Amino acid sequence: MPDIAPTGTPAELLKLIRWNDQGLVAVIAQDRGTGDVLMFAWANAEAVTSTLATRKATYFSRSRGRLWVKGETSGFIQQILEVRIDCDGDCLLYVVEAPGAACHQLRRSCFSHRVEADGSVHTDKPVIT
Amino acid sequence: MPDIAPTGTPAELLKLIRWNDQGLVAVIAQDRGTGDVLMFAWANAEAVTSTLATRKATYFSRSRGRLWVKGETSGFIQQILEVRIDCDGDCLLYVVEAPGAACHQLRRSCFSHRVEADGSVHTDKPVIT
Repeated sequence: MPDIAPTGTPAELLKLIRWNDQGLVAVIAQDRGTGDVLMFAWANAEAVTSTLATRKATYFSRSRGRLWVKGETSGFIQQILEVRIDCDGDCLLYVVEAPGAACHQLRRSCFSHRVEADGSVHTDKPVIT
Repeated sequence: MPDIAPTGTPAELLKLIRWNDQGLVAVIAQDRGTGDVLMFAWANAEAVTSTLATRKATYFSRSRGRLWVKGETSGFIQQILEVRIDCDGDCLLYVVEAPGAACHQLRRSCFSHRVEADGSVHTDKPVIT
């Protein structure tokens, strides 16, 4: 895919994003303090717009088919410190401040499973609350 | 989606991954030393198997329609230190040691563009080589 060509113009983000055939873009949430990759999810245009306006990380839940403000039920809101986009426009990075569990399993990160070279998978991150 | 249920059994990874309708899984590459999120890409079963066996980050290039060992042409190989998988099995995290440019634009990370609250996009990471 060709690279995006940002011009610094207001509201250009939604035009630069390479939406998939479901109208979604991949999103990575990363904790600024620790650098931990917290979760991987998807956003639609409304979620991206809401994220920029509210500074609360907002996603599109494919299973529930609706907008999803992370922490709306758990209380573990992800405060947006920075939003970034990659060279070909198919992924956003939400850099956040997010105390507590980012994963619904009440673990710090959704990436709680380590894969060994033999293809076995081991859960090595604790439940924190 | 229901969570994956690892058992620590060799070769279970390929069965635990929730492949998309193209037979691919999302992959995030992260530098262990700095914590930088370097890139976002996709892998098929062959790429995942090769990554675990060779300890070189391997992806599936959707544009070229073939396996892609990162750095095979640029020389910027990503040495695998750890592979992780998230709670619902739709994303892998390659934790790597990867000197130099991870992005084909010769920038450290593909996430070289910052998004402002007004939706404007600004390239704020330098070309490094």
